[in-house]
Amino acid sequence: MNDMLLNWVKEAKSVVLLGHVRPDGDCVGSTLGLFHYLRTHMPEKEVRVYLERPLDKFSYLLHFDEIRNTPDPQFHADLAIALDVSDFDRLGGFSVLFTNAKRSLNIDHHVTNPHFAMETICFPERSSTCEVLYGLLEEEKIDRDTAACLYTGIISDSGVFKYEQTSAETMRIAGALMEKGIPFGEIIDRAYYRKTFVQNRIMGRALEKSELHLNGKLISSVIRLEDQAEYSATSMDLDGIAEQLRLTEGVECSLLAGETEPGVFKLSLRSIQKVNVAEIAAFYGGGGHIRAAGCTVKGKPEEVIREICRQVAEQLSC
Amino acid sequence: MNDMLLNWVKEAKSVVLLGHVRPDGDCVGSTLGLFHYLRTHMPEKEVRVYLERPLDKFSYLLHFDEIRNTPDPQFHADLAIALDVSDFDRLGGFSVLFTNAKRSLNIDHHVTNPHFAMETICFPERSSTCEVLYGLLEEEKIDRDTAACLYTGIISDSGVFKYEQTSAETMRIAGALMEKGIPFGEIIDRAYYRKTFVQNRIMGRALEKSELHLNGKLISSVIRLEDQAEYSATSMDLDGIAEQLRLTEGVECSLLAGETEPGVFKLSLRSIQKVNVAEIAAFYGGGGHIRAAGCTVKGKPEEVIREICRQVAEQLSC
Repeated sequence: MNDMLLNWVKEAKSVVLLGHVRPDGDCVGSTLGLFHYLRTHMPEKEVRVYLERPLDKFSYLLHFDEIRNTPDPQFHADLAIALDVSDFDRLGGFSVLFTNAKRSLNIDHHVTNPHFAMETICFPERSSTCEVLYGLLEEEKIDRDTAACLYTGIISDSGVFKYEQTSAETMRIAGALMEKGIPFGEIIDRAYYRKTFVQNRIMGRALEKSELHLNGKLISSVIRLEDQAEYSATSMDLDGIAEQLRLTEGVECSLLAGETEPGVFKLSLRSIQKVNVAEIAAFYGGGGHIRAAGCTVKGKPEEVIREICRQVAEQLSC
Repeated sequence: MNDMLLNWVKEAKSVVLLGHVRPDGDCVGSTLGLFHYLRTHMPEKEVRVYLERPLDKFSYLLHFDEIRNTPDPQFHADLAIALDVSDFDRLGGFSVLFTNAKRSLNIDHHVTNPHFAMETICFPERSSTCEVLYGLLEEEKIDRDTAACLYTGIISDSGVFKYEQTSAETMRIAGALMEKGIPFGEIIDRAYYRKTFVQNRIMGRALEKSELHLNGKLISSVIRLEDQAEYSATSMDLDGIAEQLRLTEGVECSLLAGETEPGVFKLSLRSIQKVNVAEIAAFYGGGGHIRAAGCTVKGKPEEVIREICRQVAEQLSC
């Protein structure tokens, strides 16, 4: 175990583990992974995890039901450890537990981390906070349950070993975790691929209605409120559709327009390697990354698509 | 390089590389990977690759255009190497090149391999033939282009590191290949996830029309000839849909019925962990694996679905 982490935990009677708002697989995996590790090897400590309620799909992780969802401002821990928290504001309503603590530590992998904790362990070249955390723990003390947590974080944040930050070291660590006997195939399905019946059907509608523009370089699909009503779907159920559209052969850029209230559309933009979609989203007052961005627009979707076609064509000089 | 492989190649002036009918990523990756390796390090040999024309999605692999698609019965190689060929019959029309050769070697990973070649190197515990082949080559002689081939085979046959045969060793090898500088994320998208516009739309139709049975344990979808006509799709474009259906939350078994001629349906069956779909396929004269099987039926799809519901319910005792 990393010396500083070990010493600080040793000196603390109570430890509080925190993550970011809308916790994802890396956040849930790293907090529950460290929680189980400390519980197992330092049972004399009082350790608590506070997070907004994560998606039920992560319920296969041990201690999922012990996550506390309501911050307790009376709790003053000796040590607060924030995991996968790239910015103080991302602690959300749980920040009180962080500021209450005598000492604070942040374990993270975001390049933008401003080092807001007393101590920060941040490796931006790592795929995930879980990969960072693995390097801080004692390999032989990682059991099957901690391994399942860390593996969940790694596959979630690396897009199942696909995104750029995935390294040979990521693969080695994933392999070591697999050797702890985790059901890795099932974890990948549950944490990453599984969709609800509603999500599958609304994605079906979006794929079916999709249209190509600019000689197949841009693909778009519009999901109206009435489509969502037909399948009892909400805008949350539209996650992942822009990515599926992006995988269409020949496409450089994908656009999903999901109606959130009459005449208002949330746009999700994705690109492969040539189009800067952050720029397009910024045009509409939104933001994001070069290859994945979003914004909200009012008006007729066909007009918005026409304007986005213009911008994509300009970027591609076609 | 493995001693026997090296000696046999050294003793041969001409080498022919063969794969199986309807070559998949592991077959194309292993043959082209070995082709490039021999070309690079033993340029004095005459080396040829014969395969049925693989899907265009693999065209990013070097030497893709040098694959010969028509068997030449006049060619008598000193050595024939079959890769990923689990059975003599799977050589298809290219078997003449195999039997013409003075010596024959088979490199494979299928547990059922009957050792039909003079020598067989078969490791059934490996994820893929590409993983077996990696172990036979000299690591430092594997360049970026051979690495791209081997990586393609590994992700294709392991379902991107998801299927059971994926081991810590698979992960280590994948990591080593990544360090050769391959665009691994792009390879995963191109070889595994990318779909044509037609495939995406017909999948959309299938997802949209899908129905749950047995309290959500079974999901089915029927794609009629008129659906396929609407999107200019063929039955080839239905690949992968049964798998997507299988990923629906709560589902134990998925069924896609694709109409191939009026009143005739090709059934694709998938299951998670409780239903033996090979048994159901066998009932209809088909076959396959416990978790993935297929068959062809005549009749009304709603009656077939009712019968399959009965069988699945019996298996699940529900």
